[in-house]
Amino acid sequence: MSDRAARPDAVSPTNPTRPRRKVYASDPESPTIRVPFTEVTLGGALEDGVSLGGAPPVRLYDTSGPGSDPQEGLPPLRRHWITGRGDVEEYPGRPVSVRDDGRAVARQSVQGAPAAGGRGTAGAGAGAGAGMGSGPGARSSRWPAPGRQPLRARRAGSTGRRPVTQLHYARAGMITEEMRFAALREGVRPEIVREELAAGRAILPANINHPESEPMVIGRRFLVKVNANIGNSSVTSSVADEVEKLSWATRWGADTVMDLSTGPDIHTTREWIIRNSPVPIGTVPIYQALEKADGRPENLSWELYRDTLIEQAEQGVDYVTVHAGVLLRHVPLTADRVTGIVSRGGSIMAAWCLAHHEENFLYTHFEDLCEIMADYDVAFSLGDGLRPGSVADANDEAQFAELRTLGELTEVAWRHDVQVMIEGPGHVPLHKIAENVTLQQEVCHEAPFYTLGPLTIDVAPGYDHITSAIGAAVIGMHGTAMLCYVTPKEHLGLPDRDDVKQGMMAYKIAAHAADLAKGHPGAQRWDDALSKARFEFRWEDQFNLAMDPETARSYHDETLPAAPAKTAHFCSMCGPKFCSMRISHDLREYAASRGITVRAAVGDGMREKAAEFLEAGASVYIDPATASTRIAPTQDDLESSSGA
Amino acid sequence: MSDRAARPDAVSPTNPTRPRRKVYASDPESPTIRVPFTEVTLGGALEDGVSLGGAPPVRLYDTSGPGSDPQEGLPPLRRHWITGRGDVEEYPGRPVSVRDDGRAVARQSVQGAPAAGGRGTAGAGAGAGAGMGSGPGARSSRWPAPGRQPLRARRAGSTGRRPVTQLHYARAGMITEEMRFAALREGVRPEIVREELAAGRAILPANINHPESEPMVIGRRFLVKVNANIGNSSVTSSVADEVEKLSWATRWGADTVMDLSTGPDIHTTREWIIRNSPVPIGTVPIYQALEKADGRPENLSWELYRDTLIEQAEQGVDYVTVHAGVLLRHVPLTADRVTGIVSRGGSIMAAWCLAHHEENFLYTHFEDLCEIMADYDVAFSLGDGLRPGSVADANDEAQFAELRTLGELTEVAWRHDVQVMIEGPGHVPLHKIAENVTLQQEVCHEAPFYTLGPLTIDVAPGYDHITSAIGAAVIGMHGTAMLCYVTPKEHLGLPDRDDVKQGMMAYKIAAHAADLAKGHPGAQRWDDALSKARFEFRWEDQFNLAMDPETARSYHDETLPAAPAKTAHFCSMCGPKFCSMRISHDLREYAASRGITVRAAVGDGMREKAAEFLEAGASVYIDPATASTRIAPTQDDLESSSGA
Repeated sequence: MSDRAARPDAVSPTNPTRPRRKVYASDPESPTIRVPFTEVTLGGALEDGVSLGGAPPVRLYDTSGPGSDPQEGLPPLRRHWITGRGDVEEYPGRPVSVRDDGRAVARQSVQGAPAAGGRGTAGAGAGAGAGMGSGPGARSSRWPAPGRQPLRARRAGSTGRRPVTQLHYARAGMITEEMRFAALREGVRPEIVREELAAGRAILPANINHPESEPMVIGRRFLVKVNANIGNSSVTSSVADEVEKLSWATRWGADTVMDLSTGPDIHTTREWIIRNSPVPIGTVPIYQALEKADGRPENLSWELYRDTLIEQAEQGVDYVTVHAGVLLRHVPLTADRVTGIVSRGGSIMAAWCLAHHEENFLYTHFEDLCEIMADYDVAFSLGDGLRPGSVADANDEAQFAELRTLGELTEVAWRHDVQVMIEGPGHVPLHKIAENVTLQQEVCHEAPFYTLGPLTIDVAPGYDHITSAIGAAVIGMHGTAMLCYVTPKEHLGLPDRDDVKQGMMAYKIAAHAADLAKGHPGAQRWDDALSKARFEFRWEDQFNLAMDPETARSYHDETLPAAPAKTAHFCSMCGPKFCSMRISHDLREYAASRGITVRAAVGDGMREKAAEFLEAGASVYIDPATASTRIAPTQDDLESSSGA
Repeated sequence: MSDRAARPDAVSPTNPTRPRRKVYASDPESPTIRVPFTEVTLGGALEDGVSLGGAPPVRLYDTSGPGSDPQEGLPPLRRHWITGRGDVEEYPGRPVSVRDDGRAVARQSVQGAPAAGGRGTAGAGAGAGAGMGSGPGARSSRWPAPGRQPLRARRAGSTGRRPVTQLHYARAGMITEEMRFAALREGVRPEIVREELAAGRAILPANINHPESEPMVIGRRFLVKVNANIGNSSVTSSVADEVEKLSWATRWGADTVMDLSTGPDIHTTREWIIRNSPVPIGTVPIYQALEKADGRPENLSWELYRDTLIEQAEQGVDYVTVHAGVLLRHVPLTADRVTGIVSRGGSIMAAWCLAHHEENFLYTHFEDLCEIMADYDVAFSLGDGLRPGSVADANDEAQFAELRTLGELTEVAWRHDVQVMIEGPGHVPLHKIAENVTLQQEVCHEAPFYTLGPLTIDVAPGYDHITSAIGAAVIGMHGTAMLCYVTPKEHLGLPDRDDVKQGMMAYKIAAHAADLAKGHPGAQRWDDALSKARFEFRWEDQFNLAMDPETARSYHDETLPAAPAKTAHFCSMCGPKFCSMRISHDLREYAASRGITVRAAVGDGMREKAAEFLEAGASVYIDPATASTRIAPTQDDLESSSGA
């Protein structure tokens, strides 16, 4: 399939001849745990073709997954860990309705077109309509596989059913395979993961119906994570597009992906995404519920929402945004705002509250929600429905009133052993960012914070991946555990594949900047390895260690395309005639040749050595006439390749 | 010329039919002062085609200049202000040498090719060689104009010559036209500009030989400024390319431009840039001096440097980077660094010090330097030759030892009434940024800080405009007065025109984020105007107010290209069926129609009103079937334009 070709890491990922390849680290105590990393082999020559030899390869955190044919899905990595705990059971699952795929499909169905029907064929018709390959035989490979049933917490037993959540296990002192896996990824002891989960300071999103996911942990003591939003709307996109965006996002480092689809084929799109996702999948169930309610918030009900949540939990959604903090009394607090309510979920719930003049049913039924979440280990992402949509509205009464409500709800969820993270803004100017984290950590009892940006200015539509990467880095430094990316299309349109990449790159940068600032152990090793390669003119190592090797290499090619330039001891900034970094090398070589330290070489009494330094030929200037003896390309190479 | 066509603001800039146009504000006390702004007229319809009417236009700071034909240059706006003060004189100027345009031209000259000769023809030959138009008659329009002589401080008078610097005037209590102009641009009283200049907390770079420049002020009490680096190297670029980059940079908001050319035609390139620049021009004279020294640092001398500085001061360079803080005793401090010395100027001076085992001649001759600077009002940008080139090296002994030396030199320069700013790093992780500003402000007595980024991580070559915009925003918030941009090509190649734009956008974002965080009066008005337009679905106003209108509009077009979508009350994120922001409007309308406040509308005792809210049709859901009565595009429009 063409999709496969677009996923470079799916092809021969462990080929040892590639300088960047996927390797697996094993946990000696649990040999079934194999944790993926991207290993970068350093092979550049330091001087005169002498190989570095002893420089160890650099291992980078890897979210790209083992690769899959979208028709087949990923192998159920965690399945035996989940069933091995003996606390889950298969069951027939909720009957699938024609409405699950949205209003458009429901209308087609009335006209006799194929649509999501009973379990076993759900998604087939709509998937075909969406262009995921509709040839004969294609249907049989779709999900759920015939006879496959969802899992839930086991009903049997005299003590009633127990939560099957990682929080429950952590509190019980159990270190699960998922915790071991996540710990190995982070480079910490498994006990640290367990402790952080048990304290509610971290979550490990791992729905028992998403056994394909590679476990990861979200918490301020760990690496800062990045979420990528994908999903269609009523005016754009197909199922195939969304699966491609998923692959693209995880290839560029997405730690989780949210499917925010609101358009047609909503159930089927999600099924394809989950079955192909190596990372936890989040959703906002109210979006699908609204589709089922004909797009009318006032038609929503607890029963409709409950049914939708179970539908998604059975599919394997790992965390859900729930706007349970948008209370009736909070809505008027938005009246004087510049941008009112900008969260889609927040405004749906505000509309429902106003239409019925009743309290938000997600708030009044929060304990019922918790019971469902505990049955599948779906984590809460408590939504900030009243987040500011402009710098003028940042940190206002509406935003912080809702945050306090989310703090109350956190305690309720924890009583049910349900994992919780808290969503945050939005648009916040730089000087108001720290307060967001401080207050959130205080009123939400250190539950992990998960923020959208924030955007630090309002005036750069088209560049909001940058306006918000600034805010994201700063809020990450202050302790935010996961950053929801923003793409260049924010406020303007839905992201395409390249927008997904641009958003991911900006946010991987922000997350790594925060990791360095937090002093995460090991984070700086990556920077040091690349900077050392840069200083030693090991261009290929620099490219291979780069966050985006293709872009780094192609930019270098634009100015100096000739292959010899990749081994040259200079770059296009200064050209071959003088290089800033040579002086340091010359100085070190001079000192080494005299068997003295650099400090001694320029210390007192060294005046007489100055002439020697000159005579030694250790000039920082490389004469073009003799350059070929020291650098690979000739002057002709350079002139013919400069594109002048 | 094709260059002119590429400069949209140069054509009919004040055309009143354009929603974005250049306007001029006058100072009532000095009618010759006309300060440019970009004025954005807001014309969007709020509802049912009713014009906003009363919404005042928004004025934005404008750096693009009046536009020029590169062959003609800009009008000498400040000439009569400069001569009107009665303290300058014309003089024949330094004789131009064939070496001024670099080694390549000097070699051509030996072979009989035309080259920079005596004053009056300097630059003509090399300019032609560089492709700036070599037809007959082209030569006569080049600079310096026949008979034009440079200005310097007047020699006559019994009290000796006086400095002609803005610092000198400010200390004497004079408010110059330049100060008035800059104050009007900033929206502050002229006295504030004078005070900040007199205290050394701000500079107003304004060489008396660059009368084309529109005055601006750099200081932490003012808007954060952005510098764009351009310039050729020995392997790339032509004079025409550099003039185009200048225009492109100022169009996208560059407050100053540094010409860092090291390649051929160095004198001529600078002449073309200065004559066409509406913003102050900075340089690093040691680059040209090194060319004159055959690229051998050990061949440099005070006399050669002095001659080069005068050459550039006569041309009109407004500020120069001087690496006078790289002392012999500092060099060994870099020995254990991951990336040694990465500043080109720093490493040139380190090489000189080592070769001669003498103290840096820029340090030993600093008072002589000051006298030259005072003669033309060239400002110091005291260079950080030992800035860190990797996060590992940030805030180390080498960096801060040099900074303390720059503090000493600041006091020396101020004794000569010479303006000073201090350059800063470089590569600094987020948590070490604040210390840079605090220490700089302390040891340099609050002289303005001017930083390159800093880059907050090392591992994203190809995206260093983003890695560094994060650091730039944060260091700006802490008080840095000007940010030197970094383009996506940093570490990889020399920026082309599009890289210049990408770097500028990232840095205008960083600067504005810092302005908001510092609470600069008026900065948030821009955000509020755009956010209000966004909330009211005034798409055209949103685009016109955007930092980059073209990009915002084209991204919107990608998803919803049809013209009606530009007046639609929805966007592609949610589509026409449900819009988050509608609920706030509906709520406000509902309350207004009842003559009550929004708070009352959802207050106690309003339960009975809920039914009315529903009946009033103020649903947040817009039914596609009736959508045409409320939104411009029909469902067919959308489907045909979604590109599905």
